[in-house]
Amino acid sequence: MTWIANRWYVAAWDSEVDRKPIARTICGEPVMLYRKLDRSVVAMRDACPHRLLPLSMGYKEGDSIRCRYHGLLLGADGCAEEMPVKSERVPRAVRAQLYPVVERHRFIWVWIGDPARANPDLVPDFWPCSAPGWTFDGGYSHIACDYRLVIDNLMDLSHETYVHQGSIGQHEILESPIETEVRGEDVFVRRWMPGIEPPPFWRDALRSAGPVDRWQVCQFVAPSSVLIDVGVAPVEAGATIDAHDAGVRGFVIDAMTPESEISTHYFWGMARNFDIDDAGFTARFKAQQGHVFDEDVDVLEAQQRSIDANPGLKLRGFSVDQGSVRARQIIRKLIAAEGGDGI
Amino acid sequence: MTWIANRWYVAAWDSEVDRKPIARTICGEPVMLYRKLDRSVVAMRDACPHRLLPLSMGYKEGDSIRCRYHGLLLGADGCAEEMPVKSERVPRAVRAQLYPVVERHRFIWVWIGDPARANPDLVPDFWPCSAPGWTFDGGYSHIACDYRLVIDNLMDLSHETYVHQGSIGQHEILESPIETEVRGEDVFVRRWMPGIEPPPFWRDALRSAGPVDRWQVCQFVAPSSVLIDVGVAPVEAGATIDAHDAGVRGFVIDAMTPESEISTHYFWGMARNFDIDDAGFTARFKAQQGHVFDEDVDVLEAQQRSIDANPGLKLRGFSVDQGSVRARQIIRKLIAAEGGDGI
Amino acid sequence: MTWIANRWYVAAWDSEVDRKPIARTICGEPVMLYRKLDRSVVAMRDACPHRLLPLSMGYKEGDSIRCRYHGLLLGADGCAEEMPVKSERVPRAVRAQLYPVVERHRFIWVWIGDPARANPDLVPDFWPCSAPGWTFDGGYSHIACDYRLVIDNLMDLSHETYVHQGSIGQHEILESPIETEVRGEDVFVRRWMPGIEPPPFWRDALRSAGPVDRWQVCQFVAPSSVLIDVGVAPVEAGATIDAHDAGVRGFVIDAMTPESEISTHYFWGMARNFDIDDAGFTARFKAQQGHVFDEDVDVLEAQQRSIDANPGLKLRGFSVDQGSVRARQIIRKLIAAEGGDGI
Repeated sequence: MTWIANRWYVAAWDSEVDRKPIARTICGEPVMLYRKLDRSVVAMRDACPHRLLPLSMGYKEGDSIRCRYHGLLLGADGCAEEMPVKSERVPRAVRAQLYPVVERHRFIWVWIGDPARANPDLVPDFWPCSAPGWTFDGGYSHIACDYRLVIDNLMDLSHETYVHQGSIGQHEILESPIETEVRGEDVFVRRWMPGIEPPPFWRDALRSAGPVDRWQVCQFVAPSSVLIDVGVAPVEAGATIDAHDAGVRGFVIDAMTPESEISTHYFWGMARNFDIDDAGFTARFKAQQGHVFDEDVDVLEAQQRSIDANPGLKLRGFSVDQGSVRARQIIRKLIAAEGGDGI
Repeated sequence: MTWIANRWYVAAWDSEVDRKPIARTICGEPVMLYRKLDRSVVAMRDACPHRLLPLSMGYKEGDSIRCRYHGLLLGADGCAEEMPVKSERVPRAVRAQLYPVVERHRFIWVWIGDPARANPDLVPDFWPCSAPGWTFDGGYSHIACDYRLVIDNLMDLSHETYVHQGSIGQHEILESPIETEVRGEDVFVRRWMPGIEPPPFWRDALRSAGPVDRWQVCQFVAPSSVLIDVGVAPVEAGATIDAHDAGVRGFVIDAMTPESEISTHYFWGMARNFDIDDAGFTARFKAQQGHVFDEDVDVLEAQQRSIDANPGLKLRGFSVDQGSVRARQIIRKLIAAEGGDGI
Repeated sequence: MTWIANRWYVAAWDSEVDRKPIARTICGEPVMLYRKLDRSVVAMRDACPHRLLPLSMGYKEGDSIRCRYHGLLLGADGCAEEMPVKSERVPRAVRAQLYPVVERHRFIWVWIGDPARANPDLVPDFWPCSAPGWTFDGGYSHIACDYRLVIDNLMDLSHETYVHQGSIGQHEILESPIETEVRGEDVFVRRWMPGIEPPPFWRDALRSAGPVDRWQVCQFVAPSSVLIDVGVAPVEAGATIDAHDAGVRGFVIDAMTPESEISTHYFWGMARNFDIDDAGFTARFKAQQGHVFDEDVDVLEAQQRSIDANPGLKLRGFSVDQGSVRARQIIRKLIAAEGGDGI
């Protein structure tokens, strides 16, 4: 496996999961997700323990699910409650695997590995997605590539210049030096642009002209997320790369969940601390972000195909790749610690 | 291989095969079928012995077939009759493999295994499909699943309740006990519903009201068919589960032929002993039956995909599966008797 | 590998390659082709040495190519000229593989094997495609089959009778004897039809009635081309099978380049020494030739599928196949000489 088994992965947006089951393959395992009447989320192996028909094709009865094939009824705990022949005694062994679930920071997180180790404290801290004074929204894309290629992409924003030439690409970004730091399991790539003219987007967000300090901090968070802290503050606010709460600030949120070794669920969005009640701004920004990520999807899928077509060639790391090289080292180390080889 | 090699399999409806060749892969082998002038059917390996172009792409000349590529002419016995260079002597070794064929009970049956063992007496006895006083018609579906999943489906009619909820599903059926019996290579699953109100279909067929005895008898017939004897008789007729010719009776006919290990030719239909000259009834029933089987195809293909996606999970057998468990035991035993492993 | 590694293969028509890069997989290797300002052609591995994105997705800057992902700039010699971080020193090792190229006889030829052995004198002699007094044009087809099946097809024109029954097929051709000869690495299959009535196409080309001598000479040229010398001359011109420049003459040009072991780039066309300034004739003939080759594509792809579906069956060689049997012997011998097994 190319991923860390014993970690929380985003399975869905909170908005995607309702009373009616949805099917999604997470880390290679077919999973069904639905909400109980109390709105808590159930994550169950998406295969009836009887004849393996996907349970997500079944019929909900209260919090239970009845298989569409022979009518085996399973409770929200995965245990059979009624056999196809109703009078038949229900064997204890007839149950579908249940996965630990946490709903936090607007995402549904599931734990595919050893359930005994599913500690909710290990859910990555996406605080800007749920903190007071902030708002957060975004979307979902499916990408036919190894999830690590998406991490590579996001830990190096220099790609914006070329991949997003027609949209958000800016040559100025390439000209600012970056600084890479590893703290525990996190990797930070920082860019500090002091005393510059703000680009239009940030000038409008700030609602004032005049020179600003600008920052971009990409943070890799194990097992497979990247948070990008972006914003500007008026020079007189005295912001620093480490403390910059004075101006306008946002986090580009990127959670990549392996579907298989060559396909990825990509959950993306923007959390921000300005204009937080402006629903129109939120919607316009989400549409624009979706368009920009489509440009990434094209490149990432072409890259995966090229990797497959050129088995003799290896990916090289340059100075721009410091962040992703470190992030991959951490992934490899954590996979090795689980006894995997993380090829 | 997952099937019994030395048995007759349905290759086509009698109505599908005419003078112009058709191509169909049977038990993994590409076969061409056509009728001679005397209307007997030829089953030949669908590959020219010269350069392997499918012979079914060729040109018929009388009872012979001329390859579309270089014009090699093969007789209905598979032997070459004329070389691409007409003056060249025809080598005896140039021939296409011929398969034994029997046309019976409205189907074309072929024998893909050892031709020396192709005894026509082994053709399954689909007597209701050709007996006087009966009529028979039906259709064909291709299913992307192991043929044994279709047998499982048909040997347990409890699935009707859920899969066919909107069409023929009835809760009453689940409430009647079943009885399973193995006789030689046949498996019977019987349901006897004495003294009940007939459902609308059977009341109309019987053309009278009043309580009836009703039966459903699923019969697995090696290598891969299921016949379902269904009907009702007025209580006063004194029908029994073993003898019930008094009322109205039909047979749901299901012949499943492996195309490959994961795909199936499904020949289905209904034979009946009432209203046998009513062509409109036949056509309406066939259309409805096709619609019901489409619901099965959806479930069966989803089940096959789920089996593939959950390699660690096994199919379980409950009491409703007695019939299919026994049918699979017989298939396994017959494959083992041929020296196969019948995985 | 099923092909000879150290030979020139046609990668494209001269008209297909311009300043903007195109991508084409040649002998299993993804290749990018483009013209420099001086119009010479560059053939480069189509994968950025940084993160393997296809270079053909990139941006041209003069004769250099800038990768669309992170902006690595590569010169026409494949060497990096500028890193994603512009100030970074360019390591000598950062380069994309360059393939030897020759533009000749209206084709772009590339050498995928050992570049040290790329002798331009080894480019096959397609003289009618570039000789004074001749004109040449044609097209391109992709075929989902082993390139050797196309050679088989072309070295035996008897297939015209059946595959092209509705278009150019003629029974007369089958009736003329053929003569096969191997000269070095070339195989010739000759048909000489003395003193016959010219078919309409050739009569019109000759612009006169009366008996003619007609020839068809298929020539296999290693590694994978077939040239077919066709034409007629008035009997009084005294043409022979070896010397026939008196009448009207054409060459059907066929260059087959392996894309993979089961797919082929097929470059086809017609060179002729009559009506060479009649562009309308050229266009009409090309359209007709394209139509005829579509018939071949259907047959060749069906043949490949049948070969795959019938692993137990072997291709047989009859007398009509003398030419292709010899051509395959030469291919096998040259592959063996390189140390391959040429399965």
